[in-house]
Amino acid sequence: MRSIIRFPRPVSIYAHAAAVGGAEAEGPLGALFDYHDPTDRFGADTWEKSEESLSRTVLNLALVRAGESQDGIDLLFSGDLQNQCVASSAGCGSMGVPYVGLYGACSTCGEGLLLAALALNASRETSRAAVVTTSHNAAAERQFRLPLEYGGQRTPTSQWTATAGGAFLLARADESDVAPTSARITAGLVGRVLDSGVRDGANMGAAMAPAAADTLLRFFSAADETPADYDRIVTGDLGTEGSALLLELLRENGLDLAGRHRDCGVLLFDPLKADVHAGGSGCGCSASVLSALFLPALERGEIRRMLFIATGALMSPSNLMQGGTILGIAPLVVLESGVIGGDK
Amino acid sequence: MRSIIRFPRPVSIYAHAAAVGGAEAEGPLGALFDYHDPTDRFGADTWEKSEESLSRTVLNLALVRAGESQDGIDLLFSGDLQNQCVASSAGCGSMGVPYVGLYGACSTCGEGLLLAALALNASRETSRAAVVTTSHNAAAERQFRLPLEYGGQRTPTSQWTATAGGAFLLARADESDVAPTSARITAGLVGRVLDSGVRDGANMGAAMAPAAADTLLRFFSAADETPADYDRIVTGDLGTEGSALLLELLRENGLDLAGRHRDCGVLLFDPLKADVHAGGSGCGCSASVLSALFLPALERGEIRRMLFIATGALMSPSNLMQGGTILGIAPLVVLESGVIGGDK
Repeated sequence: MRSIIRFPRPVSIYAHAAAVGGAEAEGPLGALFDYHDPTDRFGADTWEKSEESLSRTVLNLALVRAGESQDGIDLLFSGDLQNQCVASSAGCGSMGVPYVGLYGACSTCGEGLLLAALALNASRETSRAAVVTTSHNAAAERQFRLPLEYGGQRTPTSQWTATAGGAFLLARADESDVAPTSARITAGLVGRVLDSGVRDGANMGAAMAPAAADTLLRFFSAADETPADYDRIVTGDLGTEGSALLLELLRENGLDLAGRHRDCGVLLFDPLKADVHAGGSGCGCSASVLSALFLPALERGEIRRMLFIATGALMSPSNLMQGGTILGIAPLVVLESGVIGGDK
Repeated sequence: MRSIIRFPRPVSIYAHAAAVGGAEAEGPLGALFDYHDPTDRFGADTWEKSEESLSRTVLNLALVRAGESQDGIDLLFSGDLQNQCVASSAGCGSMGVPYVGLYGACSTCGEGLLLAALALNASRETSRAAVVTTSHNAAAERQFRLPLEYGGQRTPTSQWTATAGGAFLLARADESDVAPTSARITAGLVGRVLDSGVRDGANMGAAMAPAAADTLLRFFSAADETPADYDRIVTGDLGTEGSALLLELLRENGLDLAGRHRDCGVLLFDPLKADVHAGGSGCGCSASVLSALFLPALERGEIRRMLFIATGALMSPSNLMQGGTILGIAPLVVLESGVIGGDK
């Protein structure tokens, strides 16, 4: 019960793309993204509509990479941080592909990959699925905290919502037209909602780290494996604060990630150049870093196996005002290189 | 491509429950619900927290009916209308079951049933799944429109967000401990996001009817069946306005539902007693009516086969203020009676 889902038919991520805003393009991974807009506007006249445009752009980039059109995609899984996830439904959702709307906050990328792999395993009629997720700094900050124009002082634990999006196209790995070098999803573990009593909207890392720890402890307890079986153990957007908490929580429970841990929120920005405090966050943070950095490493065989634990803080401003807390969740997928005998 | 998903292993809804507020309990289906709170408060001190409580209550009711605890459930699919779907994550999500957050507005019940059936078909490790969805009139009205205390005049096309929730427990139909009289999900069709240019937040029926028509036309085009193959064709919450539009759109496209159509939003309230205008709406509307009225009819064999088309208006107030429209979506599931030779 509640054990790891091992997909009978592994699923390949046969194409993917990442698009980012200006600050992200100036970061250490800048050269790896498929597209960036230095103005963060993506051709639209409000920040919210900019994110809609980003959502369509990043799916189109992945489709172009695959040499396909949206008409070839059977199912689209998508979500974002805007209320009613409208950047997704009015963004990539407007392209006519049968649509499954998700709400997993910054964990949406992991949630979507897991559900897409389930759908491709369950249904003969589904042969191609897409996962798209985005976030936009200016749209998120004014919805969840304050408009950027206020120039509010940010605390050291606060994170910087990334203006970024990732799109992933998936198919069953054993189908003849899927490149064998594509990275594969072979297993997954659905996250549990964790309440750690955090009420500080400027400390998402603390709200998410216990959920990531819960998922990793459940995974290694059920898998009969150790962190040494994975070249990388990658969390979504815990940032520096949440990453330190995660490692501490795991050590207290006898699990040492032994230098294998990386966090997309820490990787996205250069702390000496960008004033992002504890690192990046947002649905698009882990999605863009997965697409730009980790999937290519899996495709080249530089990483043979990795865990991707997307992390979400399900923060509701109205719930916080009524005395609620910031709930965390962290779905996990196992990613494996399709390159046989790939070296570490 | 994009055809109907036919589940290799049909999935049974082996237990379910519906809980509602005061106005819903006074409606024509009042005696059929498992639980109601005439104060709409469900023991909480804000409307938003009342919905959280309703979410937990309705899942517990279904678990009690099944004689199970939440520890036996492998996966929980849930969503609601509150921003960040917090009534679900802080409600039933707080019960420790691995959690998949959905955003499908009022279509969430259909979306969740479809995904749960996919998960039960894809994964040996998943043997029990739950779907929970809720809405609360007072929480929804003040988030999407105006606080009820303002006493704003409502237009004839407006609908009344139901204070209601439904919970469904699912397992593979061929497992030995599943009662053969349970209703089965045998197929499904994922909805597409439809933009019909509607900008009136008091006319959700008009925003959803084209999406329901799109799904039904795609279904009958792919299924090589006619409405006569189904005893009932049930939409979620189109209300009187949206139902009339649906039938008109279908007739224009050569499809006549021939008296088989019912709408949960029309059924929930008595228009002579409750001042609900065009009918009920909200995630909990179709969920509670499905659980209280249609699933029992399937279990008794009074309905042999039916289509359940949940309908969602993905309305975003901020998007509307920026000139956007109200997008519609309508996922479909095929429900069949488990009673062999059941009479119409």
